[in-house]
Amino acid sequence: MLNRKLRMGMIGGGPGAFIGAVHRIAAFMDGQIELVCGAFSSDPEKSKQAGEQLNLPLTRVYGSYKEMIRAEKALPPDQQMEFVSIVTPNHVHFEPAKLALENGFHVVLDKPMTFDLKEAQLLKEIAAKSGLYFCLTHTYTGFPMVKEARQQVLSGKFGKIRKVYVEYPQGWLSSFIEADNNKQASWRTDPKQSGIAGAMGDIGTHAFNLAEYVSGLQVTKLCADINIVVDGRKLDDDGAVLLKFDNGASGVLMATQIATGEENNVKIRVYGEKGSLEWKQDDCNSLLVKWPDKPMEIFRAGAAYTSSFSRHNTRIPPGHPEGYLEAFANHYRNFALTVKTSLNGGKPTPEMLDFPGTEDGVRGMNFVEKVIASGKSDAKWIEFDK
Amino acid sequence: MLNRKLRMGMIGGGPGAFIGAVHRIAAFMDGQIELVCGAFSSDPEKSKQAGEQLNLPLTRVYGSYKEMIRAEKALPPDQQMEFVSIVTPNHVHFEPAKLALENGFHVVLDKPMTFDLKEAQLLKEIAAKSGLYFCLTHTYTGFPMVKEARQQVLSGKFGKIRKVYVEYPQGWLSSFIEADNNKQASWRTDPKQSGIAGAMGDIGTHAFNLAEYVSGLQVTKLCADINIVVDGRKLDDDGAVLLKFDNGASGVLMATQIATGEENNVKIRVYGEKGSLEWKQDDCNSLLVKWPDKPMEIFRAGAAYTSSFSRHNTRIPPGHPEGYLEAFANHYRNFALTVKTSLNGGKPTPEMLDFPGTEDGVRGMNFVEKVIASGKSDAKWIEFDK
Amino acid sequence: MLNRKLRMGMIGGGPGAFIGAVHRIAAFMDGQIELVCGAFSSDPEKSKQAGEQLNLPLTRVYGSYKEMIRAEKALPPDQQMEFVSIVTPNHVHFEPAKLALENGFHVVLDKPMTFDLKEAQLLKEIAAKSGLYFCLTHTYTGFPMVKEARQQVLSGKFGKIRKVYVEYPQGWLSSFIEADNNKQASWRTDPKQSGIAGAMGDIGTHAFNLAEYVSGLQVTKLCADINIVVDGRKLDDDGAVLLKFDNGASGVLMATQIATGEENNVKIRVYGEKGSLEWKQDDCNSLLVKWPDKPMEIFRAGAAYTSSFSRHNTRIPPGHPEGYLEAFANHYRNFALTVKTSLNGGKPTPEMLDFPGTEDGVRGMNFVEKVIASGKSDAKWIEFDK
Amino acid sequence: MLNRKLRMGMIGGGPGAFIGAVHRIAAFMDGQIELVCGAFSSDPEKSKQAGEQLNLPLTRVYGSYKEMIRAEKALPPDQQMEFVSIVTPNHVHFEPAKLALENGFHVVLDKPMTFDLKEAQLLKEIAAKSGLYFCLTHTYTGFPMVKEARQQVLSGKFGKIRKVYVEYPQGWLSSFIEADNNKQASWRTDPKQSGIAGAMGDIGTHAFNLAEYVSGLQVTKLCADINIVVDGRKLDDDGAVLLKFDNGASGVLMATQIATGEENNVKIRVYGEKGSLEWKQDDCNSLLVKWPDKPMEIFRAGAAYTSSFSRHNTRIPPGHPEGYLEAFANHYRNFALTVKTSLNGGKPTPEMLDFPGTEDGVRGMNFVEKVIASGKSDAKWIEFDK
Repeated sequence: MLNRKLRMGMIGGGPGAFIGAVHRIAAFMDGQIELVCGAFSSDPEKSKQAGEQLNLPLTRVYGSYKEMIRAEKALPPDQQMEFVSIVTPNHVHFEPAKLALENGFHVVLDKPMTFDLKEAQLLKEIAAKSGLYFCLTHTYTGFPMVKEARQQVLSGKFGKIRKVYVEYPQGWLSSFIEADNNKQASWRTDPKQSGIAGAMGDIGTHAFNLAEYVSGLQVTKLCADINIVVDGRKLDDDGAVLLKFDNGASGVLMATQIATGEENNVKIRVYGEKGSLEWKQDDCNSLLVKWPDKPMEIFRAGAAYTSSFSRHNTRIPPGHPEGYLEAFANHYRNFALTVKTSLNGGKPTPEMLDFPGTEDGVRGMNFVEKVIASGKSDAKWIEFDK
Repeated sequence: MLNRKLRMGMIGGGPGAFIGAVHRIAAFMDGQIELVCGAFSSDPEKSKQAGEQLNLPLTRVYGSYKEMIRAEKALPPDQQMEFVSIVTPNHVHFEPAKLALENGFHVVLDKPMTFDLKEAQLLKEIAAKSGLYFCLTHTYTGFPMVKEARQQVLSGKFGKIRKVYVEYPQGWLSSFIEADNNKQASWRTDPKQSGIAGAMGDIGTHAFNLAEYVSGLQVTKLCADINIVVDGRKLDDDGAVLLKFDNGASGVLMATQIATGEENNVKIRVYGEKGSLEWKQDDCNSLLVKWPDKPMEIFRAGAAYTSSFSRHNTRIPPGHPEGYLEAFANHYRNFALTVKTSLNGGKPTPEMLDFPGTEDGVRGMNFVEKVIASGKSDAKWIEFDK
Repeated sequence: MLNRKLRMGMIGGGPGAFIGAVHRIAAFMDGQIELVCGAFSSDPEKSKQAGEQLNLPLTRVYGSYKEMIRAEKALPPDQQMEFVSIVTPNHVHFEPAKLALENGFHVVLDKPMTFDLKEAQLLKEIAAKSGLYFCLTHTYTGFPMVKEARQQVLSGKFGKIRKVYVEYPQGWLSSFIEADNNKQASWRTDPKQSGIAGAMGDIGTHAFNLAEYVSGLQVTKLCADINIVVDGRKLDDDGAVLLKFDNGASGVLMATQIATGEENNVKIRVYGEKGSLEWKQDDCNSLLVKWPDKPMEIFRAGAAYTSSFSRHNTRIPPGHPEGYLEAFANHYRNFALTVKTSLNGGKPTPEMLDFPGTEDGVRGMNFVEKVIASGKSDAKWIEFDK
Repeated sequence: MLNRKLRMGMIGGGPGAFIGAVHRIAAFMDGQIELVCGAFSSDPEKSKQAGEQLNLPLTRVYGSYKEMIRAEKALPPDQQMEFVSIVTPNHVHFEPAKLALENGFHVVLDKPMTFDLKEAQLLKEIAAKSGLYFCLTHTYTGFPMVKEARQQVLSGKFGKIRKVYVEYPQGWLSSFIEADNNKQASWRTDPKQSGIAGAMGDIGTHAFNLAEYVSGLQVTKLCADINIVVDGRKLDDDGAVLLKFDNGASGVLMATQIATGEENNVKIRVYGEKGSLEWKQDDCNSLLVKWPDKPMEIFRAGAAYTSSFSRHNTRIPPGHPEGYLEAFANHYRNFALTVKTSLNGGKPTPEMLDFPGTEDGVRGMNFVEKVIASGKSDAKWIEFDK
């Protein structure tokens, strides 16, 4: 393993940005990554402010991502950034990611992958050609007990999977807060920045990714009820989706931002012939495993009896709760371990490589397009692109 | 109030019947009702056995419901039964209920109301003409905190209702147990006894009734994914349904009997503009009320601060859990109080009258027909009959 | 099995009594017992009122328990009551129980057993000589999962028991409500009616009984901090007790009635060398079993994998919650099954005989005396009487 | 605010150390602190290994804490470390802390403060004289909802506090694992490294600190049952303690390491005249507030309605769980903000200053001495030193 921190440049994440700060905590937590440069805002003055607060030398704070990528590439190899972290709104995902990959920088990208499906498919190809690593930060698959859930399903212990319920109920958009200059609400409800979907892109894609990740299955068609509940809103803030999976299983996905009083209790239940499991963010260090003929079992994060995938992604003993930031950090840590192992000429382990990538991103954008199309359609089922 | 027990005759509920025993516990619990006669089985010998076990005089144990109704009517008014409790499979609901009503006996009937929608509509008319009382035992609306939930929604405190999630996940039919002579499984999966629906009739109607009762709304159209998951089964054992309500709200109903490892954790969530609530059978004495801007509140059964509807339906102080049998008993108790108050020339209170009746039954059968039709249809939305 | 209901006479439980109504629901629930007579109050007029409300013939409503026992004994054997249920305050436990036993009537008695330890020891002897059955209604040992807990401990699966935590936090006496003519509060805080202990007698004995029942151990000494927290109160309303058991294990018992906001969440945890268990009334149908090296298991009431003791005491399938009234009813049902089996010349099963008796009562009164003595003592440990 | 990271030197925390890694994650998480040097082990070779893994220049990796303090002091002020983090076993707390303070370095120290009470009192004086900042890492008071709990108690909303229950049940020492070369178990059960107490020092002090912090009260006397449960162990592994507080309230403290199957579910309940609260690590982002006459409220970390102390210590929106590492990091972050604000000539806010210090440390060592003395005494109550 390389015995030094990986050098990160950040695109976006300036003053007032929620997710940029989260990315930084996640990146720093495990001592594997250092921030060496950034283009934190399209406004050079704001970018500079952010750089100062982050204690960066001003020579490494840039007014645009283009400038940053060009300038960093010109630095000596042992100084230049080694990967970019892109934390901008959706409409500024594709171009910087493309440019970074084409200039030899690995990429960490906030979800959803791009503005539309076409961009996602293109970006997947570009990444594949580049031979570089790409991580899409679908937070919830970073939780150790979500990884445990997937491993238990893949082990076959539950038999054939028959039913998947996944839900993401939020309440923060239950009133028209985009009118109040709420930065988070504004771009997420603006078609020019978010694309064709609001809630479906923002949290529907998380739920969708979680369902496919844990079940090990792929959705083949869906039937959606998509709503704009709050008057004046421009994009969907609520949806419910019937799903069909490639093994014949069915499912239900519920994602809403108008569930007044709800926080972020993402939850998934997967039912097989022989047993089933349940995980939710509100009790994120537990995995419930249910059987028809013996007591329910509660698997706990960090326990010695859990899989290598789960244990690799915990830091402290069972009962000392790890949470959202650690789940997020797991993606950064695994990405960094993967890059560092490769730089060192080694072969990353399956546990290191278990972070979301371009295929997840394309699937997610496919979901966005199909779910919005279904919402507008009188036909019952809409098929996914192959 | 009449100072004596109301006299009940039972139809069905012989040896091996699950729900018959539940009805008897529910009827006896509050000391308001006594069993005076029964036609417990279509097999006269089995009916006699049941009568003996229940310590009935053999003169009041009958070989058929027709015989019972005829014979009881011939008894002196102060001896004859005053109402029948019908706990047979679905295909033997309509005829005995009709006969009882036409002969002047009040009726308690297990759900779903009838074999099909037409019977339900007819029975509703018959009951209306008779002037007699009719109770359909949708258990879950008997829970005090479900009643509390309805009262809070009706009070307007949550504003306009926007979203309803209701679910009933069971796992007991996740394998083909009807092959093993399981009496409960056999009739519930047999189209000749259950009608066109399996899971949708058995538990889907409970979920549907709960959703309409708590929200105070009516479903106007639905879109369903209905499945037979277990090989060899003749009726649906799984379904998920998108709902639209008469005030513009949308909803999701999930009912399945193949959720391996699940018991009976019926759950409902209702979201309004201003706040929301959540109730589930696994924590049946709590009602969660959520707000965007203040702490979640947990209302508890029996508490002095709850509504008269909730308090009227609890027997013991908060923290001493009441459960399913008490919820069931609440319907019997309220039915008995209503009948006794009427017999005494009084006017039953709204709290007494708050038990499910023929309108709930017709709505439920409407749901069964529409949900099964939708499951077979390529059209997205199926409208309810007016 | 006798194919008829057992005939019960009730002493106490007149207008305004809380526990009398609970006893009646518990007695009636399973259709094994009928109320045939009562002396519901020491005030004959109130007794008569209660009898009328309960629909008893006035000839069987008595003005005193002495009159009742004498009169019932004079009735033909197939009419007279077969057992008494005594639901009076503590100072009226010993005399009626003694008289009933001496006149050939089985006894069900509310806890704590008597006014003081001496009475309890005497009553135990009288009951033993009589050859009659005696049931002390320590409610919590009637819960199926408490019975399951005991069976699992007795099975040895947890190894030697090392630690027991038991707690009963209530908040209803956190203010001086006995000043407000609250009937429940008044007698429980009155030394003339309750004896030397308040909270320790009322709920401390429940916690103590639960600890000894589940652990299968006996307390040998204790060290108590006993308090009167609310100004003006005459008896203890709060206490915490260090315990030593006969196998060397230690424990903690906490019982308080000034835990403002608490309801009745009795809870017990028992730790052995190899594993441990936890049960609480707020989730009364679950038993948590914890292991050092494998997932926690949740055993559920009614499940086929539970012991015969648990299954014998459930009425409905797992997931349909049974509660406090069913736990109470289990004692009545087991008592009734025991008596009826004996009357029939049969031998009651261990499951039937598993209700609290005179030994539990004497242990409880021993606890009361020792815990109050310890509260007043400067010595650390107070030993139990052998 | 100083716009750069504070420079930390670490003492202890070499290979195999659990808590050293936790300290580093906590220190790094918020980007306020950088590690610049360390004496990670008393074995210079191991110290060097650790330094390499942490990517430190070898010139700043020392073979002993004495060497480190001397060498760092000789560096230019803008390069030398600014504080030390001491993460060694208890017997190596006092000397390095003293030396650091005497040489002008702020101190972060792992709990318990020292080997014995005398050292703690001395260290408190030394720190006071030095004018430097001192932080004792009692993790649990770093949780936002523990801070919220304290603020709510201090606000007076619950009235006078009457009862405190605090518990810390662990199971990891339920067998004799110190025989297996378990590094964590070995030093914690060794009187030469831990002092006179095992469980009481390791986790009893946490529970004690939590009780005094949340209640705002001080323990004046105690009565303890202290046990060595596992054969062969040299120090206590189990204890239960009755407490008396300076306002007349009483309490119970339970701390054990032989509760087989338990993880780290620290829990506290505080009861006042008017209301009460409950917090536990297993649901660390919730604070339960209970009332006698209105619904229980659940306050949630990060919510806008919580106090400034709670909000200052959360990073992400409600429902995205923060956990143990964030609680730990809060102490580092507040310590760093305090030091940086002071360096900048500013005045730290009360929120910044809310980390445990020398007074907590002395109280904790007082607890250790009294609880062990009480465990050996036949007298009931042992008084605290003033």
